[in-house]
Amino acid sequence: MKETWATSAGLDLHLEVSGAGVRRGLEAALREAVRGGRLAAGTALPSSRALAQDLGVARNTVVDAYGQLVAEGWLAARHGSGTWVAERTHQPAAAPADRPAEGAQAVRYDLRPGVPDVSAFPRTAWLAAARRALATAPATSLSYTDPRGLPPLREALAGYLARARGVAVTPDRVVVCAGYAQALELLGQVLRTRGASRLAIEGFGLPAHWRIITGSGLALSPLAVDAGGARTSDLASEAAAVLTPAHQFPLGVALEPRRRREVVDWAAGTGGLVIEDDYDGEFRYDRQAVGALQSLAPERVAYAGTASKSLAPGLRLGWLVLPGRLVGEVVAAKQAAGRLSSSLDQLTLAEFIGSGGYDRQVRRARIGYRRRRDRLVAELARRAPQVRVTGIAAGLHALVVLPPGADEHAVVAEGARRGLALQGLADFSAGAQPHDPAVIVGYATPPGHQFSTAVARLCAVLREVT
Amino acid sequence: MKETWATSAGLDLHLEVSGAGVRRGLEAALREAVRGGRLAAGTALPSSRALAQDLGVARNTVVDAYGQLVAEGWLAARHGSGTWVAERTHQPAAAPADRPAEGAQAVRYDLRPGVPDVSAFPRTAWLAAARRALATAPATSLSYTDPRGLPPLREALAGYLARARGVAVTPDRVVVCAGYAQALELLGQVLRTRGASRLAIEGFGLPAHWRIITGSGLALSPLAVDAGGARTSDLASEAAAVLTPAHQFPLGVALEPRRRREVVDWAAGTGGLVIEDDYDGEFRYDRQAVGALQSLAPERVAYAGTASKSLAPGLRLGWLVLPGRLVGEVVAAKQAAGRLSSSLDQLTLAEFIGSGGYDRQVRRARIGYRRRRDRLVAELARRAPQVRVTGIAAGLHALVVLPPGADEHAVVAEGARRGLALQGLADFSAGAQPHDPAVIVGYATPPGHQFSTAVARLCAVLREVT
Repeated sequence: MKETWATSAGLDLHLEVSGAGVRRGLEAALREAVRGGRLAAGTALPSSRALAQDLGVARNTVVDAYGQLVAEGWLAARHGSGTWVAERTHQPAAAPADRPAEGAQAVRYDLRPGVPDVSAFPRTAWLAAARRALATAPATSLSYTDPRGLPPLREALAGYLARARGVAVTPDRVVVCAGYAQALELLGQVLRTRGASRLAIEGFGLPAHWRIITGSGLALSPLAVDAGGARTSDLASEAAAVLTPAHQFPLGVALEPRRRREVVDWAAGTGGLVIEDDYDGEFRYDRQAVGALQSLAPERVAYAGTASKSLAPGLRLGWLVLPGRLVGEVVAAKQAAGRLSSSLDQLTLAEFIGSGGYDRQVRRARIGYRRRRDRLVAELARRAPQVRVTGIAAGLHALVVLPPGADEHAVVAEGARRGLALQGLADFSAGAQPHDPAVIVGYATPPGHQFSTAVARLCAVLREVT
Repeated sequence: MKETWATSAGLDLHLEVSGAGVRRGLEAALREAVRGGRLAAGTALPSSRALAQDLGVARNTVVDAYGQLVAEGWLAARHGSGTWVAERTHQPAAAPADRPAEGAQAVRYDLRPGVPDVSAFPRTAWLAAARRALATAPATSLSYTDPRGLPPLREALAGYLARARGVAVTPDRVVVCAGYAQALELLGQVLRTRGASRLAIEGFGLPAHWRIITGSGLALSPLAVDAGGARTSDLASEAAAVLTPAHQFPLGVALEPRRRREVVDWAAGTGGLVIEDDYDGEFRYDRQAVGALQSLAPERVAYAGTASKSLAPGLRLGWLVLPGRLVGEVVAAKQAAGRLSSSLDQLTLAEFIGSGGYDRQVRRARIGYRRRRDRLVAELARRAPQVRVTGIAAGLHALVVLPPGADEHAVVAEGARRGLALQGLADFSAGAQPHDPAVIVGYATPPGHQFSTAVARLCAVLREVT
């Protein structure tokens, strides 16, 4: 074999004869060369034409292989500047502040909860919506705009939330936010200004959210969580209660009907506010999703939703539907710090919802995630029968309870050794409630082609350690 | 004239025979009908085909007129949903928190400072950049991403800022922000956490920025500003000084070379931080722009820039170039509250800069704004010779100093009566320094076709009142 760029770069090429085989072989060789460090970050790759000639394969084969590796994040490319080995310091996709700082190279399969399959983001449909939106948007929408969010988006969201989540909403109650994190920050600030000192949270949840609340100067009262959701009977004189009624994060249970009623009664009786974090309410698999708690008491509940699970966290778009008395204060807090959201993304999302693209995307994702969940449950039952999947058939993650005495940290560590990123339930505990050892499996994150391997490795890890 | 939709809607149509005349007449009639309230917000307009038939004009004439009025914000349109009268509650374009809540209908010509000509936003080039960026972006860039900003954007900005503004910068010192407001909020938070209690500001500036600083728990020390910029010799034990060295806002002077040196020496001697707000540094008309102060002392200066003036405020994209010791803390503050920026806009801006589109846009805008400034200065000299334009030939606004004894509030009020939005210098004063009566004229904001009329009205107002 003559010396080519490929062999000089240390690519170990075993190319099969058929087109798909050649491409897969080339992909695998390039992937391994990057992962192993033989191709360092920033290294320019030869043009597809040059490499194709070098290897004696069709140019499209190289173009396709490069494209796949760009999609996987191993390579980067820019129109007119060729293709190079990507920086991998910002990978894997990390939920802010809550993901361990593992060596990125080590993580091949990410099963931590909180991130959807971003490789399925509808890029073409989104760009088409952006084009339509920009074709007709008035120039003023590109200036400093209404801090509540652009009117077309608030109208589109009001329509969607009423229809899909049963939210009692008019556009003037909607405030667009840079994701749920900003929504929570704004509410915390407003509550603190109103004299609040303590918020109830669920005893299992996302520490990043708790830090946002304490960052506003508020103390936390964790509520115990059981199979019926948060124990709302323990609510007392807190100024507000932050709940995930549709699908408790991370335990995966739904708030039982009696408690839905109970929390609303508590709010009415004490003047407390319910903050409903409906982060993945669109994704229910076994039956029609329960509507938002907010509709029971629109003047007592601040409803929060997000595009981070249904589309992509990178959009940084979320929304609040607020009781009338809070709209002004939340908007003032948002405006005071100049915390507006991107007009272009707002206009595009409005158009995407209005044209039906959002519903189509949610439907498509729901089918895909449901299949993944079924597959996960089936594989675990078959290959790691000692564990139990609990919680309702919904959302983007499942709680996998380990047998008594098993060590969830050992599972996480063994997973890491095999390139699998996992998180144990302890990472999500406010510390007030003992719990069985468990791992939270975010089954939506890996791109589709990695999912089977990720589940197989998970089963192997569980067989090994539990 | 038979009854048509146009006449029934109360449109007073005097259509000339030539094509352009017909279009202009139709535009004017529709504009007046919306402004006067005869066509209420939300009213659906007939299809262009139907109205063209109705009026006996070419369909393209109607299409063009609708398009123009959509661009001006009077009408709204969505692909497939026709054209209707726009909601105007969020107009005119308002800088956050600093713009009077005038009846939007009253403002026809906006000469308040702070907003570029958003009607000149390069929509087509931006969409093309978005398409190229999304074609190659790894899926992980749509997930939760590096809180410093996406690597391609930090690289592109580092290259651009070094080249165009002489900033001493590497990509790891760049932190992408949601505009300057967020940059200032983050710096205020970090300084407060480090124990700072007081920041020096320029005695004339933007009250919204001062509120962001005081919102972080910091007190303000206003520095006097004269023809040489802020009097940096008055700097004492403040923890930081926020300056606009290239083009003082709003007085329009440049910080003189001796003071540039002085402020850097102050920072080195006291350990203070200089926050350089380079909001419109790209726009200098009489000679090559002075480079960023930051290059004199990169470890003492936090440089802040923004796309709000060069492209559009609605993008909500700005950037910091930080001393090494501050990067970690600023990023931690940004991450703690989940304050990331939109991935799509970040990727698009990176591509836009990398492909040369950003430079082209800045060049084009610079030529246009320079012409406007020359025109404004010439018209004022000719038609209101009692006023003086001071400050350097730069940026998007000019200080128009009124004759002694004139009342700037009367000028603002008379402007409002004639549909002209103006702001007096008093609106931008921290109160510590007396000043001659003056108005700040933001000459970049009106769309090009309104500029002549806006200037003519300004001259008429000044003739009338001063």
